[in-house]
Amino acid sequence: MKIIVDAFGGDNAPLEVLKGSAQAVRELGVEILLTGDREKILACAKENQIDMAGMEIEDAPLVMPVEEDPMKILRQYSGSSMGRGFQLLADGRGDAFVSAGSTGAIVAGACFIVKRIKGIKRAAIGTVIPNDSGCYLLLDSGANKECRPETLRQFAVMGSAYMSKLYGIEQPRVGLVNIGTEENKGTDLQIEANKLLRETAGIRYVGNVEAREIPLGGCDVAVCDGFTGNVILKLTEGLAKMFSHQIKSMMMSSLATKMGALLLSGGLRGFKKKLDYKEHGGAMLLGVRKPVIKAHGSSDARAFKNAIRQAASCAENNIVAEIEAGVEAIRAQSEEED
Amino acid sequence: MKIIVDAFGGDNAPLEVLKGSAQAVRELGVEILLTGDREKILACAKENQIDMAGMEIEDAPLVMPVEEDPMKILRQYSGSSMGRGFQLLADGRGDAFVSAGSTGAIVAGACFIVKRIKGIKRAAIGTVIPNDSGCYLLLDSGANKECRPETLRQFAVMGSAYMSKLYGIEQPRVGLVNIGTEENKGTDLQIEANKLLRETAGIRYVGNVEAREIPLGGCDVAVCDGFTGNVILKLTEGLAKMFSHQIKSMMMSSLATKMGALLLSGGLRGFKKKLDYKEHGGAMLLGVRKPVIKAHGSSDARAFKNAIRQAASCAENNIVAEIEAGVEAIRAQSEEED
Repeated sequence: MKIIVDAFGGDNAPLEVLKGSAQAVRELGVEILLTGDREKILACAKENQIDMAGMEIEDAPLVMPVEEDPMKILRQYSGSSMGRGFQLLADGRGDAFVSAGSTGAIVAGACFIVKRIKGIKRAAIGTVIPNDSGCYLLLDSGANKECRPETLRQFAVMGSAYMSKLYGIEQPRVGLVNIGTEENKGTDLQIEANKLLRETAGIRYVGNVEAREIPLGGCDVAVCDGFTGNVILKLTEGLAKMFSHQIKSMMMSSLATKMGALLLSGGLRGFKKKLDYKEHGGAMLLGVRKPVIKAHGSSDARAFKNAIRQAASCAENNIVAEIEAGVEAIRAQSEEED
Repeated sequence: MKIIVDAFGGDNAPLEVLKGSAQAVRELGVEILLTGDREKILACAKENQIDMAGMEIEDAPLVMPVEEDPMKILRQYSGSSMGRGFQLLADGRGDAFVSAGSTGAIVAGACFIVKRIKGIKRAAIGTVIPNDSGCYLLLDSGANKECRPETLRQFAVMGSAYMSKLYGIEQPRVGLVNIGTEENKGTDLQIEANKLLRETAGIRYVGNVEAREIPLGGCDVAVCDGFTGNVILKLTEGLAKMFSHQIKSMMMSSLATKMGALLLSGGLRGFKKKLDYKEHGGAMLLGVRKPVIKAHGSSDARAFKNAIRQAASCAENNIVAEIEAGVEAIRAQSEEED
């Protein structure tokens, strides 16, 4: 299993990328193909005594700035650490690709260099988010700010494949994010998508799901357009930060609370770990021909290692073939109905 | 100051409504005009030894079921406890109205019985939500699932008036909920609204605000369409429930954590109170000619008392006049530009 890793994506590149890659080689037994400036990578590894065993480097000195127009990944930045990574993946030089670069460029590279699965209209960003009973998959988390009902149906099929293959959930409960559970709730998009999803074979659709129920375990796959999904993803992050900040200041408020905090420290660590999205790796680009993982821009070594683990797991479990089968099933169903 | 209260709205009516109303009379010095079945109200008060001093009853035996078509408040249920309340408010028999009935019916009653302020195209539901530094106003929280840019501009003006008058924030920071801070982010709605808001005199517009920043105190007024706002409101509720549940089970996991929890109990109560939306009363219908407060369906006596306090405060501070002035300022500005 060989994972291609963009050594120059994210706020902490290349140091944390290299550390995470070295951990992945040691702990997961994968091979790593790094893309980026060879000299800088070697210098960073030397300076920080990072063991480069199990890692190759594909020299690509250019770095695509995060604020650049995403489509430039196809031309001006095709030779950048990220552009090169996509090309290597498309050429079969590795089994999956991990980058912490800009989301827009990753979506563009995945769709136009690696290319979409036949029949898939839009690739979606799938993010696994902790909830009260474990975790759920949110898609689209931001690749498509506007969607059509048929697109949401494809998201449901892709998300279902992902959660059953990678998380071992036999029949993942798919919910449509909406502002009420009744059939007439939402805009035309939700009303139409709800009808389509009800008729879709091969998924376990549980209907409209209100945002209140999502963190409480209302579904295993939450389907929505990328605007709504991005709001959900970021609000979840912000609220987690706010709660943790509030708890901290509450604990520091008196001698008694400080002692209480001390007694709770073990439990709090477990709690924090449970709610930490970094434990789940990165976001997956669903709908493209090879696994592409977008690591968080602020990823540290551990987050990179987990993103690499996730990439390897997607490749091992052949999530792409599972999605292909799901899309084919919808196509066959539509033909039958015609 | 006389507040009209729908005695038969919400899951805990009429008992909790009566208890909350009695508390409001005692603690806030307001008069209460209850609408609903007189006999049932008197029987409930007698059975539970609720002092009815300071309260009148307007007999309205019909109750509008929550699942009914909201527009029926105008005809079939115009004589219901809620419909009657709206009519009394429109007739000037009280200064503000509180109901925990269905949101749809409250929006319909507010817009078509009490009526919108001149120039206001859409009434919005404004909800005050705790954040890391205090609280912010979210609007629209669900009255208008789709909005136009001009509508969002009116929401900004109304929200600004509310937060400055009721929360004493001199120049409330108004943010537009979006999936990025750059000008080109979001759908056409956000792109156009962002332009309009930048040009709007009389408000302190701080630009696009990502959902991550909202609970961290990124703005005092968060403006968005009702679909997005409803997702934000309900996700906030769900995540608060999930965190509190996770903390509880963590605290019960060992003897040490149980002891820690004991030492923290005072702090935890303060923390819980700080994050409790019930402390802020209910949601306000912004854009109608008299203050209308929608209390949460699951309101208890304390929540009803706080909703009554909020209603009284809206009337005292003449929030309606403030909004009228704001809308007039936009109109004058547009004329000047023409």
